[in-house]
Amino acid sequence: MNLLIASTSTVYGGKYLDYLTAEIQNLFSGIGEVLFIPYACPSGMSHDAYTEIVAKKFSESGIKIKGIHQFANPKDAIAQAKGIFTGGGNTFVLVKQLYDNDLLDVLSTRIKAGLPYMGTSAGSNIAGISMHNTNDMPIVQVPDYKTLGVLPFNINPHYLDPAPDLLKHMGETRDTRIKEYLHYNQTPVVALREGSWIEGKENQLFLRGKLSARVYFNLNDIREIEPGTDLSHLIHQK
Amino acid sequence: MNLLIASTSTVYGGKYLDYLTAEIQNLFSGIGEVLFIPYACPSGMSHDAYTEIVAKKFSESGIKIKGIHQFANPKDAIAQAKGIFTGGGNTFVLVKQLYDNDLLDVLSTRIKAGLPYMGTSAGSNIAGISMHNTNDMPIVQVPDYKTLGVLPFNINPHYLDPAPDLLKHMGETRDTRIKEYLHYNQTPVVALREGSWIEGKENQLFLRGKLSARVYFNLNDIREIEPGTDLSHLIHQK
Repeated sequence: MNLLIASTSTVYGGKYLDYLTAEIQNLFSGIGEVLFIPYACPSGMSHDAYTEIVAKKFSESGIKIKGIHQFANPKDAIAQAKGIFTGGGNTFVLVKQLYDNDLLDVLSTRIKAGLPYMGTSAGSNIAGISMHNTNDMPIVQVPDYKTLGVLPFNINPHYLDPAPDLLKHMGETRDTRIKEYLHYNQTPVVALREGSWIEGKENQLFLRGKLSARVYFNLNDIREIEPGTDLSHLIHQK
Repeated sequence: MNLLIASTSTVYGGKYLDYLTAEIQNLFSGIGEVLFIPYACPSGMSHDAYTEIVAKKFSESGIKIKGIHQFANPKDAIAQAKGIFTGGGNTFVLVKQLYDNDLLDVLSTRIKAGLPYMGTSAGSNIAGISMHNTNDMPIVQVPDYKTLGVLPFNINPHYLDPAPDLLKHMGETRDTRIKEYLHYNQTPVVALREGSWIEGKENQLFLRGKLSARVYFNLNDIREIEPGTDLSHLIHQK
């Protein structure tokens, strides 16, 4: 597999996708046109407007972008794509449209066969086994939480460490929420901090970026892993 | 209706339900035993452990607590209850158990007929038309997002104002998330800040507490309303 699964599109103080420019050029090297999936509609943005933002960024690297909504048949668009990028927004809105258009199987099959795939935020959530660990509000109903399953775990993007002194708010921390998940589920969760990503090459899944990631194997086995670690190896050891 | 729909169980620096003691005594006045619904399982807590915490707090007001899980038939428990409290935790875990036990209809019917009902957080979310505006992680799958509908709007509990300087995090603000919801739905959303609650008396729904609440009628009509406002009147004016 050829994967770039990023926690976020934009790091604090940076511009859209700027910290990933070299990674994008590497992943989509030699590919003239990448298919963009704008279904996550951040802030309710239209597919056209979202695609335009992405096209502008990718043009800096000489890569054309075409939105999946611009094709008569989205399934064919995926079947024929040379590379795919799914942007962030609301995971429920994204997954609903993937189910409505019956795209999960074809997308999963192609990625597993080596198609270069990039996701940020919601687009990374769907690379996991299920979308159970999204941080998004369930603003639309999805037929199922099962997602692409190209990673052997789930993703929690935008992971935030508990900051009890920062906010006068008694809401659950991210850590608490993921642990609650593990009371009901056996799927491991990889929590990616801002600026972290997973690089998938063949059967290896390397943690990239400057920060460690938090891997929740189960309630009794939670580890901080360092950049460069092969997550695939870690998971298969279990 | 006789309602106490609170944003949170615990205000910053306070103890569990302490800021609501007088309200609890008022709502459940003359009722010796209140039925507690512990299904939201905060931090994966057992029904017994959660019920014990609530029983301890209510005993200060001379009110007995019995957990719905202690009854052979939970539907009968609701049918015969003199008052009901649903505690916070994970809204998905709560709603799944309500559906699994087929309790939504009987609960809604009894509350609409005047049964004193108190909810905090997830227990308040379910008083709305749907659970679409919960902040919780979708750690289990629910059959449907439709909830009790005893309020003519949805609740977003624990509402947090945008704080761009506080967190170096590019995630969506609560305001952004609720606005995204309104791109796909027509149901108004009442966002309750910590320490705010709605007091329902007959056909009126008063905002209580010290803070204003944010009412999202639609994308073009978002208002800050002051404590004492009758939300029912506001909604029916629309």
